[in-house]
Amino acid sequence: MFVSIVGATGYGGLELIRILNNHPQFKIKSLHTSSQFGRSLHEENAHLMHMKDKLEKIDPEAIAKHSDIVFLATPSGVSSRLISEFSDLDIKVIDLSGDLRLQTPGEYEYWYKKPAAPKPIIEEAVYGLSEWNAKAIKKSNIVANPGCYPTASLLGLAPLYTEGLAGAASDVVIDAKSGVSGAGKSPSAVTHFSEMNENFKIYKVNQHQHIPEIEQQLGRWSPGMQPIQPITFNTHLVPMTRGIMATMYIKVDRQTSSEELVDLYKTVYEDHPFVRVQPLAQFPSTKQVYGSNFCDVGVAHDERTGKVTVVSVIDNLMKGAAGQAIQNANLLMGLEETAGLWNSPLYP
Amino acid sequence: MFVSIVGATGYGGLELIRILNNHPQFKIKSLHTSSQFGRSLHEENAHLMHMKDKLEKIDPEAIAKHSDIVFLATPSGVSSRLISEFSDLDIKVIDLSGDLRLQTPGEYEYWYKKPAAPKPIIEEAVYGLSEWNAKAIKKSNIVANPGCYPTASLLGLAPLYTEGLAGAASDVVIDAKSGVSGAGKSPSAVTHFSEMNENFKIYKVNQHQHIPEIEQQLGRWSPGMQPIQPITFNTHLVPMTRGIMATMYIKVDRQTSSEELVDLYKTVYEDHPFVRVQPLAQFPSTKQVYGSNFCDVGVAHDERTGKVTVVSVIDNLMKGAAGQAIQNANLLMGLEETAGLWNSPLYP
Amino acid sequence: MFVSIVGATGYGGLELIRILNNHPQFKIKSLHTSSQFGRSLHEENAHLMHMKDKLEKIDPEAIAKHSDIVFLATPSGVSSRLISEFSDLDIKVIDLSGDLRLQTPGEYEYWYKKPAAPKPIIEEAVYGLSEWNAKAIKKSNIVANPGCYPTASLLGLAPLYTEGLAGAASDVVIDAKSGVSGAGKSPSAVTHFSEMNENFKIYKVNQHQHIPEIEQQLGRWSPGMQPIQPITFNTHLVPMTRGIMATMYIKVDRQTSSEELVDLYKTVYEDHPFVRVQPLAQFPSTKQVYGSNFCDVGVAHDERTGKVTVVSVIDNLMKGAAGQAIQNANLLMGLEETAGLWNSPLYP
Amino acid sequence: MFVSIVGATGYGGLELIRILNNHPQFKIKSLHTSSQFGRSLHEENAHLMHMKDKLEKIDPEAIAKHSDIVFLATPSGVSSRLISEFSDLDIKVIDLSGDLRLQTPGEYEYWYKKPAAPKPIIEEAVYGLSEWNAKAIKKSNIVANPGCYPTASLLGLAPLYTEGLAGAASDVVIDAKSGVSGAGKSPSAVTHFSEMNENFKIYKVNQHQHIPEIEQQLGRWSPGMQPIQPITFNTHLVPMTRGIMATMYIKVDRQTSSEELVDLYKTVYEDHPFVRVQPLAQFPSTKQVYGSNFCDVGVAHDERTGKVTVVSVIDNLMKGAAGQAIQNANLLMGLEETAGLWNSPLYP
Repeated sequence: MFVSIVGATGYGGLELIRILNNHPQFKIKSLHTSSQFGRSLHEENAHLMHMKDKLEKIDPEAIAKHSDIVFLATPSGVSSRLISEFSDLDIKVIDLSGDLRLQTPGEYEYWYKKPAAPKPIIEEAVYGLSEWNAKAIKKSNIVANPGCYPTASLLGLAPLYTEGLAGAASDVVIDAKSGVSGAGKSPSAVTHFSEMNENFKIYKVNQHQHIPEIEQQLGRWSPGMQPIQPITFNTHLVPMTRGIMATMYIKVDRQTSSEELVDLYKTVYEDHPFVRVQPLAQFPSTKQVYGSNFCDVGVAHDERTGKVTVVSVIDNLMKGAAGQAIQNANLLMGLEETAGLWNSPLYP
Repeated sequence: MFVSIVGATGYGGLELIRILNNHPQFKIKSLHTSSQFGRSLHEENAHLMHMKDKLEKIDPEAIAKHSDIVFLATPSGVSSRLISEFSDLDIKVIDLSGDLRLQTPGEYEYWYKKPAAPKPIIEEAVYGLSEWNAKAIKKSNIVANPGCYPTASLLGLAPLYTEGLAGAASDVVIDAKSGVSGAGKSPSAVTHFSEMNENFKIYKVNQHQHIPEIEQQLGRWSPGMQPIQPITFNTHLVPMTRGIMATMYIKVDRQTSSEELVDLYKTVYEDHPFVRVQPLAQFPSTKQVYGSNFCDVGVAHDERTGKVTVVSVIDNLMKGAAGQAIQNANLLMGLEETAGLWNSPLYP
Repeated sequence: MFVSIVGATGYGGLELIRILNNHPQFKIKSLHTSSQFGRSLHEENAHLMHMKDKLEKIDPEAIAKHSDIVFLATPSGVSSRLISEFSDLDIKVIDLSGDLRLQTPGEYEYWYKKPAAPKPIIEEAVYGLSEWNAKAIKKSNIVANPGCYPTASLLGLAPLYTEGLAGAASDVVIDAKSGVSGAGKSPSAVTHFSEMNENFKIYKVNQHQHIPEIEQQLGRWSPGMQPIQPITFNTHLVPMTRGIMATMYIKVDRQTSSEELVDLYKTVYEDHPFVRVQPLAQFPSTKQVYGSNFCDVGVAHDERTGKVTVVSVIDNLMKGAAGQAIQNANLLMGLEETAGLWNSPLYP
Repeated sequence: MFVSIVGATGYGGLELIRILNNHPQFKIKSLHTSSQFGRSLHEENAHLMHMKDKLEKIDPEAIAKHSDIVFLATPSGVSSRLISEFSDLDIKVIDLSGDLRLQTPGEYEYWYKKPAAPKPIIEEAVYGLSEWNAKAIKKSNIVANPGCYPTASLLGLAPLYTEGLAGAASDVVIDAKSGVSGAGKSPSAVTHFSEMNENFKIYKVNQHQHIPEIEQQLGRWSPGMQPIQPITFNTHLVPMTRGIMATMYIKVDRQTSSEELVDLYKTVYEDHPFVRVQPLAQFPSTKQVYGSNFCDVGVAHDERTGKVTVVSVIDNLMKGAAGQAIQNANLLMGLEETAGLWNSPLYP
């Protein structure tokens, strides 16, 4: 099966290339970029010196002719324009941007400060949280690949909602931390090495655009699918390249224990090979999923406060972006969910 | 004035030496260690190659004869033993360990898993949160220097409590992050470079011994000084050497706004040069206090959730340990609070 | 084909496991350790939580019965003892330690301060620098896998020697730098995070045990295979986990130019997919081979000094250890040299 | 005494501010910048939130009226223009750029690719390697503050030249490594955190503009002050913020030993408090001078090769830039050489 990538030279695009180079069924057919077309991929990417691929212009019709799937690894605001051009063509689209994730255009415009994608396309798009939406993904033509923070947060919170321990009225605090690659490839003062190294920063305090994405999905899991109470959500930059940890605090609706919670999580994720639930009293570090598609989750009940602590880690470029996109592509095409993704984390 | 340090070769002791080398009034009289006495300080501390000091045995009587103040930069469990030997002697003691911070011996023994210090000594010890306890510190003989996390947390939360926005029943979540020097100088698997680099870890989930210290102090600030609701408090290791950030979420008891909060914080800390309150909508990073005694605080009201977000940063070895110890020594001795501590942060 | 690993829990052993998990022909049959047998592999290796393997005692006869190859990922001094037990059994051995690399026992004992392996075994062992010794490796029973620094250095210098630009009398300076994982998994003061982070260290000045290994191999490439002039070789620790760079300065024996050198290197390595020669005036960084088996080489002639500068980078745990070991295993077993190793570097 | 800084917002300027804030005799009179004038210093420098200073336009006449010394912390090419405006005014100038260091304009233009400063100014400028040129500095009006790499290299090599072990014909290899702050404050692809973190890079291979500066100074120390043989000099970026190590290899002109060399270095630097010579068989790491004005040097004779290894470390922003500039200002003004600079390194 042939796939193409639009936005091949950003970190998301490069990670797709890395995975696809070892994928048993998918073959990269073409790589596209709005700015560097005509050049060789390896020119500004010395790590890919062994590859001969050229970068091409973005030509949806040509892409649709030779590829089964196109990945849009383009920034928010760009995807929504491209998606319209692809939507009439015979090709599956997986969009890694935030453009198709929010079902309410007004919400998108409020949080992203940009025009929303056309309503029919938003409605056609399926939210690609692979472990929880596989049925819909398999039948879809357009997948809205989840954000990195929502992936970590939602995989960590899901069992509480689906098993009835939390609901629309629950008080949820998500304190999230990310490696710097989440900020993308463009140099800036914030990500300048001498500023970011040996530093820990908070950013977009109470205003991150992933807030409505998490709330929307939690709402779907709540009884009656009603809108949930606003969540508290903050994000920090860690002086490292890859990795996200979401540390989450939730007041649950009934008595429970750490033992019960670990059992419940293990049961829920039994058939989901990419979610690894930690044993009782153990919690994950970001490095234990480095370069892999795993999401590792630890959970505990704090008897003093009655709150549940959930700790969830992913590699932001893998399960948080390109890895989950390939996982969704596998689902779309009826392949093994783990095809091309079953590598162990790089360690140390 | 002469000072001595017991536990001179740990990170706390070395930081005291660094500060004291430039202090206008204090002069190091002697350096003590339980294990390396007889050797020269610089032998295992190449950064102090310009110093000639020898390391000596711990001899409280001799120390009390030649020094006005002794700093105990010793681990919890060791300080409580030493403190008894110093308490009858004519010398002021500043203890950097956790041994004298908790007023209830049972609490200490529950959280530290060690025997508590003698009750009379605990009662004599004054909690050395300099900005909030200066009067008592000035008259004391024994100062219990606060923990690193409590310092960052309490300086960030104090105005909410003292100004009546929060109280004993408030729901408080503190998500704290620390550089690795907080784990001390002894090598371990957790702090092995290849394990900790490019990694973000959570540790002691819901069980950190700084929890009761924070709760005790918040209780003192609450109306009626009643015990407060258990707080949620967690700690993480950041792949950097120095710096602590406490990100805090509090449901406050009345309507407020970010503008009001910033003003209130600025007023509260007006005469406290080491606490720098950020302008509206700005939040601190750990690096902006690197190597300094500042505590920088940003505060905002989240209109969606009604919660207040407080972000507080310190250098864990300075304001979080040795710096605050010197600040307390300055208070004890009637010096300028800032003597020897008024250096700008190292940047970048 | 079945393989086993002795010393499975060190960084070399874990990296072998990571590669083998995705190898198309090799299957891990058993994992062995002298200290942790009886436990599950994932117990102290959370990144391998998805694996069920048990750690077993070291039993050469049992291993030889069920495996075609055994990897000894054991420290120097341990391998030499184990190797004797395996040498009479029907199994191929690939030793990752330094025990079988030096042909002269006296040299080994001088540099390693340990007794050398038995002479017949040393003589049987083939030096596993895959690109330069493939013929001998294919026919061997025992492979002495090269050291990390020698691999980077020798792949960078080889063309100068084999093409007659350098020889036994050449003045060679190798200034090498390594990520900290090269120092192994045991915590120590040197590799304690707070000591090593934001630090750059030199170690074993003029005394690294890889010196004789490099000299021995350069001697084999020199005309008449005569012993070469002592080389200058030093090693540094970089505050990063993975990666080696060898920066090398050689006075060559005839006039040349950067253009000629790049062409010459490209020709020499044309059929060696893991060695990627940089274009003219470009030089590699360590990150461009991260997690991969590539060795990237840049070369230039300095017209001012008449010296040649060669810059060679590898991932020390891959091409510098486990990766090359698998490459040698592929050669031994008649597989594609790249089997299981053809992944792109992790980037960024 | 009053001082002003032109180029106050770059890393060199900010480091001058940090030092001057604690200097016993110098007081900052004004801060100047070509782009951000009119703003407050702390606006983009949160670490200086406790300072009230404004940034002003560059007005040489006004500066000369109120200040005794002006520091030019401006880029190469800018200083040479400014210097002419200051040279007729009654003010001492210390230039941190490379514009006044090379005595031959043609050399400057070849290496810097820019027009040289006016010949009379170049001739008036004194090379500010404090330990070796104090007499001339004390009498000068214009100081050319040395480059960071030349400072580390020259302090490490000087004794070999001045004591007759090396000379114009010596073969010198300098392999230098720097923290990333040496690349300045402007974000770029090279210094983007995700690119530079966990990476080790070589740059400007054989072409660094500090080469002629080192050669010029070595020539002055050589017998007859003749031009020396071209040196081999290369530079690397280390994933850390501060610190330079120069590892140097020199064939010396007579028999020697490590013992003799260490003694000789100790004697040479006996009265120079900022140069700390390591004991026999010990070598410095960059962190042991972090944030200080020390240059630590280790030296050894390699009996195998007959070469001398010198390892020299500095903090590139201190002894390599702002620290040495203040040291030179102290000399200029007849103060203690160590005034305002005698702080211990930040550790860990």
